[in-house]
Amino acid sequence: MSDLKEKILKHVQPDLIAIEKALQENLHGHLELVKDVAGHILFSGGKRLRPLLMVLSARVCHYAGNQEYAYSAIFEYLHAATLLHDDLVDGGKLRRGRTAAHLIYGNAVAVLTGDFLLARSLSIAAKTGLPAVIAAIAGITENMSQGEIQQLARKGDDDLSEDEYREIIRCKTAVLMEGASRVGALVSHAEEAEEKALTAFGFHLGMAFQMADDLLDYTADTDTLGKVAGADLREGKLTLPVIRSLAQASAEDREEMKKIIRRKNFSPAEFEKLLALMHTYGGIAYTRQQAEKHVRKARGCLALFPDSETKEILGDIAGYALHRKQ
Amino acid sequence: MSDLKEKILKHVQPDLIAIEKALQENLHGHLELVKDVAGHILFSGGKRLRPLLMVLSARVCHYAGNQEYAYSAIFEYLHAATLLHDDLVDGGKLRRGRTAAHLIYGNAVAVLTGDFLLARSLSIAAKTGLPAVIAAIAGITENMSQGEIQQLARKGDDDLSEDEYREIIRCKTAVLMEGASRVGALVSHAEEAEEKALTAFGFHLGMAFQMADDLLDYTADTDTLGKVAGADLREGKLTLPVIRSLAQASAEDREEMKKIIRRKNFSPAEFEKLLALMHTYGGIAYTRQQAEKHVRKARGCLALFPDSETKEILGDIAGYALHRKQ
Repeated sequence: MSDLKEKILKHVQPDLIAIEKALQENLHGHLELVKDVAGHILFSGGKRLRPLLMVLSARVCHYAGNQEYAYSAIFEYLHAATLLHDDLVDGGKLRRGRTAAHLIYGNAVAVLTGDFLLARSLSIAAKTGLPAVIAAIAGITENMSQGEIQQLARKGDDDLSEDEYREIIRCKTAVLMEGASRVGALVSHAEEAEEKALTAFGFHLGMAFQMADDLLDYTADTDTLGKVAGADLREGKLTLPVIRSLAQASAEDREEMKKIIRRKNFSPAEFEKLLALMHTYGGIAYTRQQAEKHVRKARGCLALFPDSETKEILGDIAGYALHRKQ
Repeated sequence: MSDLKEKILKHVQPDLIAIEKALQENLHGHLELVKDVAGHILFSGGKRLRPLLMVLSARVCHYAGNQEYAYSAIFEYLHAATLLHDDLVDGGKLRRGRTAAHLIYGNAVAVLTGDFLLARSLSIAAKTGLPAVIAAIAGITENMSQGEIQQLARKGDDDLSEDEYREIIRCKTAVLMEGASRVGALVSHAEEAEEKALTAFGFHLGMAFQMADDLLDYTADTDTLGKVAGADLREGKLTLPVIRSLAQASAEDREEMKKIIRRKNFSPAEFEKLLALMHTYGGIAYTRQQAEKHVRKARGCLALFPDSETKEILGDIAGYALHRKQ
């Protein structure tokens, strides 16, 4: 385990325990099958990054209540709901190293359990009694579904631009992290400047996080990844490492790369060739730089807050986005 | 067209026009593909019963604002979202006489557009600024997804009891109608007694409506139904006409019926035989009586309100639940 990860985990250990408890408690009293399926995706070693973001954001805004863990479940439920639907949409086979829920329980149950978790997260949001929180959660869901639809509509399109890519990852990843840190500020009745700073913090963290995740598909092996390397490309999903490489490549090499990409069932040798070209044209390095830029911006957003252990950990979490298993 | 239907339509014509407009307007500014798919299910001749219920309930409570049509879109969007997901879950091929969306656009787009409509309805709910409204909408969604999961879990189970059936149709149909009329009261800041009366009105209307719908599967032909007759049974869904007939049948006839039910790919002759037994054991008549009972109760809930044209139309709508195309 990296020192940074160890430091973060040590600090947030009590929070993680309380978050686990809240995730369990908010499923009480519901159908056994629903709990089983929700549990399959919820309790399979997720990082709890989104609820943690909300809890730490609330703390940095001096939240004075005692419902932060209950509220934080909103963001893990929403996340799990989208994972359930996305794996089905993408035909994903593995999730966190386990068989995806739709392959175990069937499409129907996966869809409906996703709906249930979505509804559960909104029920908890309603409990805050704050229309701004509820509007934020509804807005996140709208954005996420639209982002996924957009990604789906552009599947296999090898002309996806960097701007279009950024808009897609904003919708599918950044809005949820942005929402989590923003809601931390909202439930604390923080000043507008603090709310804005945390909103931007979550946004940049989310962008960095997704870029780092998209990098992993070209830099990690199946065991550490929990899914097959090169999987995005096989699904027809173009991400920044490829988009940037295509944009920088000579006409000849671009055609060569596109030929491999279009094939989808490319051989390991072809994938290696593509990777070599991506290194040559700097798509891998560029993506890492862009992710680093977002991390720096995320850290910059915290400048507004006086120094504290919580602020430091939020900064560490931003930095850690780049140092996941690669 | 029946006289009752003509009377209702004449009265609510301006409302239906305003509801159509609100349904269009609330999709503005969203992705074209999302609008296409949402439009496929939204603008294919739905009755707009749920938004209408909200609007009329608000009117009977002397709603003084001008957002009733905008708010009423919540209930049609929610309904459309569940239709999109349910058709996929059930493998439904026809919806309102048109090819089901998942067969035209694919499962993925159908799932995500359903998510989007769900989110859209919650965004509108958030605009009311009333936590009770938002909690109601979130609660409806929780109930509906759980009801569908329960129905799915019991699929093909020929021991489903009448009580279990009632609980399933409560979740899948009555909670949404109950919610629509309740929210009409809530946005009007009605007295608690009025809110309770309209909640109960919507519940009984929903129960009657679903029972009448379940009857149609045994009494209507494919053309009027917009889907294949006997379809519920072929999908392994037991509804009250069958449940009651099984409960009343002699041991011998019960076995005979169960044999046909279990086969699913029963021939037209077998279906006729089953129908004959259902008439013999009164399952059809009993279901109609139960639906009538709910209509009477629904009407009774309106007693609290002083006589008015709106109250009369609400009563007519309850009555009409029984007189749909049969």
